[in-house]
Amino acid sequence: MAGDLQWIEGGGITSPAGFRAGAVYAGIRTYGEEPRRDVGLLVSSQPCTVAGIFSNNAVVGAPITLNRPRVATGVAQAIVANSGNANTVTGEHGNLDAARMAEVAAAHLGIAADHVLVASTGVIGRLLPMDKIEAAIASIEPAADGGMWFTRAIMTTDTVPKHHAVQVTVDGVTYTVGGTAKGSGMVHPDMATVFCFLTTDAPCELGWLRQTLREVGDLSINMVDVDMDSSTSDTMLLLANGAAGGDAIDARHPAAGPLRAAIEAVAIELARDLARDGEGARTLITVTVEGAATHEDARKAARTVTSSPLVKTMVTGRDANLGRVLMAVGRSGARVEVERASVWIGEHCAFERGAPTDVPYAMISKAMDLPEVHIRVDLGLGGESATAWGCDLTEDYIRINADYTT
Amino acid sequence: MAGDLQWIEGGGITSPAGFRAGAVYAGIRTYGEEPRRDVGLLVSSQPCTVAGIFSNNAVVGAPITLNRPRVATGVAQAIVANSGNANTVTGEHGNLDAARMAEVAAAHLGIAADHVLVASTGVIGRLLPMDKIEAAIASIEPAADGGMWFTRAIMTTDTVPKHHAVQVTVDGVTYTVGGTAKGSGMVHPDMATVFCFLTTDAPCELGWLRQTLREVGDLSINMVDVDMDSSTSDTMLLLANGAAGGDAIDARHPAAGPLRAAIEAVAIELARDLARDGEGARTLITVTVEGAATHEDARKAARTVTSSPLVKTMVTGRDANLGRVLMAVGRSGARVEVERASVWIGEHCAFERGAPTDVPYAMISKAMDLPEVHIRVDLGLGGESATAWGCDLTEDYIRINADYTT
Repeated sequence: MAGDLQWIEGGGITSPAGFRAGAVYAGIRTYGEEPRRDVGLLVSSQPCTVAGIFSNNAVVGAPITLNRPRVATGVAQAIVANSGNANTVTGEHGNLDAARMAEVAAAHLGIAADHVLVASTGVIGRLLPMDKIEAAIASIEPAADGGMWFTRAIMTTDTVPKHHAVQVTVDGVTYTVGGTAKGSGMVHPDMATVFCFLTTDAPCELGWLRQTLREVGDLSINMVDVDMDSSTSDTMLLLANGAAGGDAIDARHPAAGPLRAAIEAVAIELARDLARDGEGARTLITVTVEGAATHEDARKAARTVTSSPLVKTMVTGRDANLGRVLMAVGRSGARVEVERASVWIGEHCAFERGAPTDVPYAMISKAMDLPEVHIRVDLGLGGESATAWGCDLTEDYIRINADYTT
Repeated sequence: MAGDLQWIEGGGITSPAGFRAGAVYAGIRTYGEEPRRDVGLLVSSQPCTVAGIFSNNAVVGAPITLNRPRVATGVAQAIVANSGNANTVTGEHGNLDAARMAEVAAAHLGIAADHVLVASTGVIGRLLPMDKIEAAIASIEPAADGGMWFTRAIMTTDTVPKHHAVQVTVDGVTYTVGGTAKGSGMVHPDMATVFCFLTTDAPCELGWLRQTLREVGDLSINMVDVDMDSSTSDTMLLLANGAAGGDAIDARHPAAGPLRAAIEAVAIELARDLARDGEGARTLITVTVEGAATHEDARKAARTVTSSPLVKTMVTGRDANLGRVLMAVGRSGARVEVERASVWIGEHCAFERGAPTDVPYAMISKAMDLPEVHIRVDLGLGGESATAWGCDLTEDYIRINADYTT
């Protein structure tokens, strides 16, 4: 049936036609005992239409300074990425290093240097070991099944690689969308760098691609409690190389809806993966706010509940102190009238129109004892809703972050 | 010498003349093994001029709903307080309970019920055990040396009681200012309830008292990383009973400056106590932002650095990853140009005008190995500055908050 999404088991950024990737170990930084790949390349067989969303922290990494004007041209063909060092707060030296990474990658791949985008994540305020990185880039042999290696190369404190791919067929043409993400560090919107790279072999009109990425970003990665507007290196990119053939897809194209749904599906799965794999996390927390007066209110309230340390630790301890949810909603900036607000954990209503219900504490606590806890708030003020994802806050989070550099 | 501040060793809210206090154990909630006083009364021998600052969370506790119009009259004579239950999100029943607490206290003390203010802190969303509380209130015998018991009765996860008092003499008249605070739960601005109660025997004109409390609050309690505008029960009150005699103090009175300095000194010491005693904290973090373009920028940047979990865990691990400070400044909303920004830990400059310095990592880490870590940021953009206080984030924080209700 046209428009149905078909997930590709084990798929990722090289599932769409024409994309190749690879990664090697440069030794930028050791994580734990054994060497892990830390420099990766993703390349398309032909130049792509590209859209991007970048951190709007006032302090950004050198790669973002480099990428912004390149993405503004609407054309890119490759991404060179590293973990272990974010090349951020590194002054003019850092800007030159980022440009050099793109040059070396371009020379190695035989493409234009200004068609290469750069992404770096890791420690802030230290210069990149460029000798190691240059040698590493030049040794990568991108392959059609190499997406997983690229995914591994961008991981920092992530415990699992995150990648998905999906296919959708419209009027006999099959389009594939792949994606990968890295994140972790979920306690707060300034915590950790998020990368989300999406690829598709659909041909896309630039304006449509940009709008689609913006909308999808707001429904997915931007609703994880690490947020695009805060870390210094956050980067979301969508590359469309057109290898599937056919006319460029814009809002009037029959494939626009199904392709947008495919992109959104991949991005939301990646968002959930990011939340689930938050540093030290044991529980995925999904927060849906309904009945908001405005969509912005719903978004603010959902995100504030998800990022509240008191809500997170409530889930950690399976301790149904659900007043914390209302307290977080109250400080979110959303319009709230507590006597209209209700709160559910799973199927259990803990607060109804501002007052505690008779549902026993033990029953609500038990409903929290799952790998995914769903908190639902009805503000009772309107028809707008939004969903955000987060994770519980555990002692492991502290252990990870108190000993990060060394 | 006129205007010099003289600290009173072990002083507190009953150090100023005419204030008495006491507390008893009502059994609202057990903390740990042994019974702890959980209901307290503070009363003045005569009606006081009063100023107050309350949470501006959209969800507030019943006591705040009760107190706001009472404080607006400018007159109060007593505070009845409890820990163990915040009487918040308790519906109309909760409002009646708060009013009843004031009535019972007033009857017991022989004063007007609408001159009694109420403060409750603890679990949210459960009704108060009013039978226990009423009996407890009626059994309290306030005494001139009972301030410490009141202080203990408002503690929740606080590990030490917080109280200070200071005297200042102007033109032969000695004024005493006392104060107590409870806080803890320092990880984020929505964490825990802050109470700060200040008393003085100075006679104060209402308008001057209100402005002084507002200004002092913004320099002290509001600069701890638990902030007055976010928990549902945050309350700061200043009661002036005039027992020291003399004319009412307003902005033109010769004692206005010295008295304001005394109130500020007590409030800042309480703010530092709150930060130092953050849940699980081992280190007081003092953040000064200088060179800001505006005072609001300085405040925002200092507070954002103080509340950043990445900065907190950096201090926990004595791990001098000071790029995290610049990242937090960057997301604070303050005007920042990274190439003008410098960062110090103690005496060591780690970033100078946006680039890392040569000061060895080990030396900077060592400078963090103290009970109080001072982070200083110079934005290089103007002449405004502000100071905020916070604490490190430890595994004990998680332990405390994941197991709070039960």
